[in-house]
Amino acid sequence: MSTILYLTQIEFGPGVRSTLPRALTEIGVKRPLVVSDPGVAESGLLDQATEGAAPDAPRFLDVPPNPTEAAVTAALAIYRAEECDGLIAVGGGSPIDLAKGVALLAAHSGQLESYAAIYGGIVRIGAVAPVIAMPTTAGTGAEVGRAALLTLADGRKLGFISPNLIPKRAICDPELTLGLPRRLTAATGLDALSHCIETFLSPRINPPAESIALDGAGRIWRNIRNAAAHGQNLDTRTEMMMGALEGGLAFQKGLGAVHALSHALGGLPDLKLHHGTLNAILMPAVVRFNADHVGDKLDRLKKAIGLDQSDDLADELDRANVELGIPTGLGALGVTEQMFEWIVERALADHSTPTNPRQPTAEDYRALLTQAMY
Amino acid sequence: MSTILYLTQIEFGPGVRSTLPRALTEIGVKRPLVVSDPGVAESGLLDQATEGAAPDAPRFLDVPPNPTEAAVTAALAIYRAEECDGLIAVGGGSPIDLAKGVALLAAHSGQLESYAAIYGGIVRIGAVAPVIAMPTTAGTGAEVGRAALLTLADGRKLGFISPNLIPKRAICDPELTLGLPRRLTAATGLDALSHCIETFLSPRINPPAESIALDGAGRIWRNIRNAAAHGQNLDTRTEMMMGALEGGLAFQKGLGAVHALSHALGGLPDLKLHHGTLNAILMPAVVRFNADHVGDKLDRLKKAIGLDQSDDLADELDRANVELGIPTGLGALGVTEQMFEWIVERALADHSTPTNPRQPTAEDYRALLTQAMY
Repeated sequence: MSTILYLTQIEFGPGVRSTLPRALTEIGVKRPLVVSDPGVAESGLLDQATEGAAPDAPRFLDVPPNPTEAAVTAALAIYRAEECDGLIAVGGGSPIDLAKGVALLAAHSGQLESYAAIYGGIVRIGAVAPVIAMPTTAGTGAEVGRAALLTLADGRKLGFISPNLIPKRAICDPELTLGLPRRLTAATGLDALSHCIETFLSPRINPPAESIALDGAGRIWRNIRNAAAHGQNLDTRTEMMMGALEGGLAFQKGLGAVHALSHALGGLPDLKLHHGTLNAILMPAVVRFNADHVGDKLDRLKKAIGLDQSDDLADELDRANVELGIPTGLGALGVTEQMFEWIVERALADHSTPTNPRQPTAEDYRALLTQAMY
Repeated sequence: MSTILYLTQIEFGPGVRSTLPRALTEIGVKRPLVVSDPGVAESGLLDQATEGAAPDAPRFLDVPPNPTEAAVTAALAIYRAEECDGLIAVGGGSPIDLAKGVALLAAHSGQLESYAAIYGGIVRIGAVAPVIAMPTTAGTGAEVGRAALLTLADGRKLGFISPNLIPKRAICDPELTLGLPRRLTAATGLDALSHCIETFLSPRINPPAESIALDGAGRIWRNIRNAAAHGQNLDTRTEMMMGALEGGLAFQKGLGAVHALSHALGGLPDLKLHHGTLNAILMPAVVRFNADHVGDKLDRLKKAIGLDQSDDLADELDRANVELGIPTGLGALGVTEQMFEWIVERALADHSTPTNPRQPTAEDYRALLTQAMY
């Protein structure tokens, strides 16, 4: 167990969920709204995570896989009716992002859309209601991230970004990930890997973030196969959770084309696509697209994760996807070429596009989608 | 130029001193007290750093080499008389630490001593007046650190520690270090190296801090000789300043015996000893003392800074001290064996002792001092 203070205070290690009551006291939250999703609640994880903390707190458990404006509005209504003064989010990235949305609207008037990053919302987001984040996956890094991805009523999946959206406390207890099924372990772990890789390759200058990203990439690469195969191994789960946390600490430096495309794909109205799975599928193509625009960084990345310099990183990512049972392409998820223009338009407007090492055109994005189809 | 948000918002890069007026506006400081020392003021650096920002701001320029309670009190009197609402600290660690002391007492009643870490002050330090830190050395990391080292009237050099003491903005402009003399470049650079090394070796669990520390150690080791010899090389100065910043971001993980001893030595009433010089002299002996208690970390450290695995790190640190003109031992600085008991008593009580990899006894500290004498 250790206390880490970077973007926010993080309690990390097996059993640290027991610090939740103290966190509520320290942050001054007397009546939290507990936010989670049906899967986490039914598995018993929610009770395990919040045991001994605010036993009569109201709960909102209807978080959809990609959180929507409608769900934010519904949770906010409970928050107000119950006179809450903060939130506890338990789950993967979706409950945490939804809690951030509620925390934002609890303290700001006007439409959610007006606070989106692409509409200049960054400067309009002031202090928000306090959020305590308890991840149950080793993946999104949302527990320390300053972004929430929310899908508006018209289907646009937009990023809401502000240092004020960073949870006041992240409680990262790897015991909460022990029961995560093989498929979700793989998909969320590859999501975390994509954070480390995209952050490290992005062109902004931020050596601390790059150092953290390389360390995180190494932990995930060395442990993800074992975590998927032997989910009850606490040491492996702890390494995975640290890698995911490091991805979240690092991605303030900026992500890239993988995330620009997966944000767009995640907003497709009829398909409920999993963010981590999308990132895993898109990564090899984007690494190839960027390869000649990142200096010696692919060599440093290979060294950090233990690959030989003669190995091809994109090929190794393809191989890992196969070994980990990730669907072979976007086509297998129901994506069709007819959707490409819709996706490309949104990817070009996404806040992650400007920090890709090589600026993608519409044609580039179409080509990347084509490569990722099968 | 880049914006980095970890412990606080950092503006980093040549020329970023121009962001000072905007920082004052963003933080809401209308009447800052400018804190610096006579050397920085006379060299013209102070005017260069604050050009265009709050031109009629009151100044306190009498910061001693190891800032004292008396100087804090004197600066606080000006702060109050001039109805200031924040501080700009320009210089090495001393003006920044003094500004933190003023910021603390401007918002808290009672004696300074009662807020010292060893008297449980950590939990009593609430919100303080905002500080903007502009380092003119690549050394202390005080610009992002949560500690202030202040010498009380009775000679004890105590640590005051709280996340609330972290400056609200660090403005790290390597152009402000171009004129730093060879001797100070070496001593402050080795101070930064000691932060990276002690932090990396300390036994707490904090992989992000360790990753940052390794990166910082490498930057300093590769550039310190060149920075000392060719002070006008901006690329080298930029690398040194990033290494020092990384040391400051990392040392929240905990320091060790080097700093426990140098804090005590820095409080010796008749000798005004330079913190960085002390750390440089003490490091080889402490690395030898810890060598069998740090697992494979010395090997990883050697790899990160570019030494061969067959090299002895402590020997290399000794060699660097000689090359960089660091005094050969504490004896050359006026320290005598008669002072040892005074020093050992304070080192044992220092907040950095518990995070040394091997717990030093009084006898161990005496032996370390003896080894560091000549």
